[in-house]
Amino acid sequence: MPEQTGRRRGGGREARRAARTRETATALPYITRRVPPYEVLSEEGLTTIEDNADAILAEVGIEIVEFPEALGIFESNGADVQGTRVRFPRGMCREIIQATAPSRYTQHARNPARSVEIGDPNMVMVPAYGSPFVRNLEDGRRYATIDDFRNLVKLAYASPSMHHSGGTLCEPVDLPVNKRHFDMVYSHIKYSDKPFMGSVTNPSRAQDSVDMVKILFGEEFIQEHTVITSLANANSPLSWDHAMLGSAKIYAENNQAVLIAPFILAGAMGPVTTAGVAAQTLAEAMAGMAFTQMVRPGAPVIFGSFASSMSMQSGAPTFGTPEPALMMFTVAALARRLGVPCRLGGNLTASKIPDAQAAYESATTFIPTLLSGANFVLHSAGWLEGGLTMGYEKFILDADMAGMAPSLVAGVDLSENGQAMDAILTTGPGQHYLGTEHTLANFETAFWRADTSDSNSFEQWELEGSKDAAARAHERWRQMLSDYEPPPLDDDVDHRLTQWIEERKSSFPDSDVA
Amino acid sequence: MPEQTGRRRGGGREARRAARTRETATALPYITRRVPPYEVLSEEGLTTIEDNADAILAEVGIEIVEFPEALGIFESNGADVQGTRVRFPRGMCREIIQATAPSRYTQHARNPARSVEIGDPNMVMVPAYGSPFVRNLEDGRRYATIDDFRNLVKLAYASPSMHHSGGTLCEPVDLPVNKRHFDMVYSHIKYSDKPFMGSVTNPSRAQDSVDMVKILFGEEFIQEHTVITSLANANSPLSWDHAMLGSAKIYAENNQAVLIAPFILAGAMGPVTTAGVAAQTLAEAMAGMAFTQMVRPGAPVIFGSFASSMSMQSGAPTFGTPEPALMMFTVAALARRLGVPCRLGGNLTASKIPDAQAAYESATTFIPTLLSGANFVLHSAGWLEGGLTMGYEKFILDADMAGMAPSLVAGVDLSENGQAMDAILTTGPGQHYLGTEHTLANFETAFWRADTSDSNSFEQWELEGSKDAAARAHERWRQMLSDYEPPPLDDDVDHRLTQWIEERKSSFPDSDVA
Repeated sequence: MPEQTGRRRGGGREARRAARTRETATALPYITRRVPPYEVLSEEGLTTIEDNADAILAEVGIEIVEFPEALGIFESNGADVQGTRVRFPRGMCREIIQATAPSRYTQHARNPARSVEIGDPNMVMVPAYGSPFVRNLEDGRRYATIDDFRNLVKLAYASPSMHHSGGTLCEPVDLPVNKRHFDMVYSHIKYSDKPFMGSVTNPSRAQDSVDMVKILFGEEFIQEHTVITSLANANSPLSWDHAMLGSAKIYAENNQAVLIAPFILAGAMGPVTTAGVAAQTLAEAMAGMAFTQMVRPGAPVIFGSFASSMSMQSGAPTFGTPEPALMMFTVAALARRLGVPCRLGGNLTASKIPDAQAAYESATTFIPTLLSGANFVLHSAGWLEGGLTMGYEKFILDADMAGMAPSLVAGVDLSENGQAMDAILTTGPGQHYLGTEHTLANFETAFWRADTSDSNSFEQWELEGSKDAAARAHERWRQMLSDYEPPPLDDDVDHRLTQWIEERKSSFPDSDVA
Repeated sequence: MPEQTGRRRGGGREARRAARTRETATALPYITRRVPPYEVLSEEGLTTIEDNADAILAEVGIEIVEFPEALGIFESNGADVQGTRVRFPRGMCREIIQATAPSRYTQHARNPARSVEIGDPNMVMVPAYGSPFVRNLEDGRRYATIDDFRNLVKLAYASPSMHHSGGTLCEPVDLPVNKRHFDMVYSHIKYSDKPFMGSVTNPSRAQDSVDMVKILFGEEFIQEHTVITSLANANSPLSWDHAMLGSAKIYAENNQAVLIAPFILAGAMGPVTTAGVAAQTLAEAMAGMAFTQMVRPGAPVIFGSFASSMSMQSGAPTFGTPEPALMMFTVAALARRLGVPCRLGGNLTASKIPDAQAAYESATTFIPTLLSGANFVLHSAGWLEGGLTMGYEKFILDADMAGMAPSLVAGVDLSENGQAMDAILTTGPGQHYLGTEHTLANFETAFWRADTSDSNSFEQWELEGSKDAAARAHERWRQMLSDYEPPPLDDDVDHRLTQWIEERKSSFPDSDVA
């Protein structure tokens, strides 16, 4: 007689309970990772890269461009300042960061149900950032406007997989350069109730962003709570400028979060090797992160990295290639060792259109992003053409695919229901599982599925017009915009905000000088 | 003064040497993985699944359909046989497999430079298998013919990322069902010199495949060497039939390799949970693998798994979803613990065409495949429509993307050249790396790039006709077929093969009964 085991009872009820738990888990306004991150390097390898970053900071140091105040701050905190060059004794930046930078922080949304926890073991998906162009199947490619910006806020708001409204969803080039930020930040506030990013193109615009959230949340609230996360890119290699570091200073002073991100096109702004780019990234990021802690100890800060490979034929940046994936795994591990949240990856591509190239390259970036354990995933949706274009259809397709993230990082369910032994032992050889109690109990939550994917038969697909994924995505964003309903915003707050913006806008002339 | 380190010298020469080493490494006819596999489950979790597989084999067992001889073989090796049901005492299958199944084997190609090593730490990329339809941009979707089959052998031969010619690249439905295998195996031999797969639709066709390689390699050679790897799918759940297991027996008897692969559409042929499907897969595969070792101890065998999720709306299989990715990580770990090579994954999709859906789903399968550490990756190129269609353009795009695999699994180079510290310390802040000695020395091998990806500027892309990836892939396969030159085949061997086939074909009537 075959051996008997006696551990399985009540599969049906247990199954339904487990299914409900899963549903609740995925209803959180961010993702909680339960699988281990993928570690590409050993502890020894990571230590080598950390040593190299320390050597870079000590020997070459960081150039601080047109920001004498920052030089003073660095010097008074123990750095060696010669002219505009700041060198750091080995270990100094790491010690400062580890002493006060939080490993996790809450970014509050105006709708508390949408506040996100940024840091391990969580993951927050954020739309693409910074494109001057937009593209959709109707208009092709054209310069972005504030109308596009509002559309994209609405699409991010309506996309369950996007936890964040993002920042510069596109550059509204129909507005003056020095006043766009008012309309961008206001659009995030008005058309969404998800958390968002502020302006970093000039410290005064960072201050405007802070002043606007003071009106929205109240001045006292924001001194205690973080309601903005903003992006500051280094001028790689090894340089920080006044616009970015000055903006970082404003945010840090106000207890708002800054994402400190070296942006390295390997071969141009850094060496062509992964270990080299990782060491340079760590050096540049540690200098920036330490600066925020010097400005205000405890201010939330994210260790960011953007690193792409390059076409050795044309010098063009390339995406979805293996080297940036290795870089992501490495940087995420460095961030965990430093003890700060990590931003990297997204759905990146060099393709001009939402075709197979775009999807291959995006997924080849996005899956390593998920397995790296990144906490803040900028560029999760919409990115085309190396970031020059925000694609409407690409946004929908990416956001749809990003919906898989919670299931992937939830890992393998080893509960009794997950093991499904009752089902297997009672369904005989050659029988099917379609009608079993276990299948029916788990049916609704068992498998994630992309809404824009067509898994029907060829015949059904043909009957429905032989559409490709981009055509389905096109229909979807049109429908989403037509179905859009704004989240409620207090009339008084809205009035005060718009009035304040009007006053600020009329207090200085329009300019298109950045 | 900043601290000085003294470990870096001769970056240029070292760099060039490292670059040459990398080139040689990627010129091997298979991939060697240097990164650790991604482990989604702890040892405890894997043990739970192994225990469950043992329980399934002991309590329910496996149904052996229309193959009394196999029942006798199982019984004489210690299994409990009641009618057509075979139950296995706990641990029996594992012990038999671990006693004699090789952890790695060489599959010899007729060109020795193309022989592959199947097993850790290697990875072998193999085209898609089994589609009755083909699709290309010229003809759309239609039934496949032997001409298509030959074209696909030629394309696999001409694709550097494909290490293997595969098996049923498409079903040549213009030929009688009971004689197709002659033309398929002959096409692999004639139009390629890469390793290939044999027929499994009937034990007599497996024997024909073996007889053909006896002519090609010589009878003595094949008794000592493995020259065929063939695919045997279980009839999930928990059933093996005469066609597949009988074919496996023929191959094992002749020291040829069999890929033992449960094919589970979760929710139909197995439960809807990953842990459940993994236990069922392990049970079915262990029964099949143990059978090959009973037939001939030491015969090469691969632990395979094909598991897809399902649309809960339509019941259609879905691909590129997170649940099969978790399944892949789990099964690869189970295979490592069992000590046999592992097959899973590929570039799978439910899309009917090579659009963004196809690419998202394929890459979302393929990247986890690579990180799982799978050794034999069937369906690496061409798969469309859940396997019903082999796409010419999809083949090119997949094969191109598969070209990233060696760089990804090579991991991070931590050599002196990889650390690039000379380059970083001598290139100052704000300077670029385009002309540095380190960049020039590593330029050619630094970054992998897909040939069918367009990373040029928008303007350049527009000038070149605004093509999508599928259009570029179309041009590419047309060019590859037009450039194709067959590898030399000994005239006498060719003559004996064709004569033998003619004799065999005329010895029994055509039939389209499978």
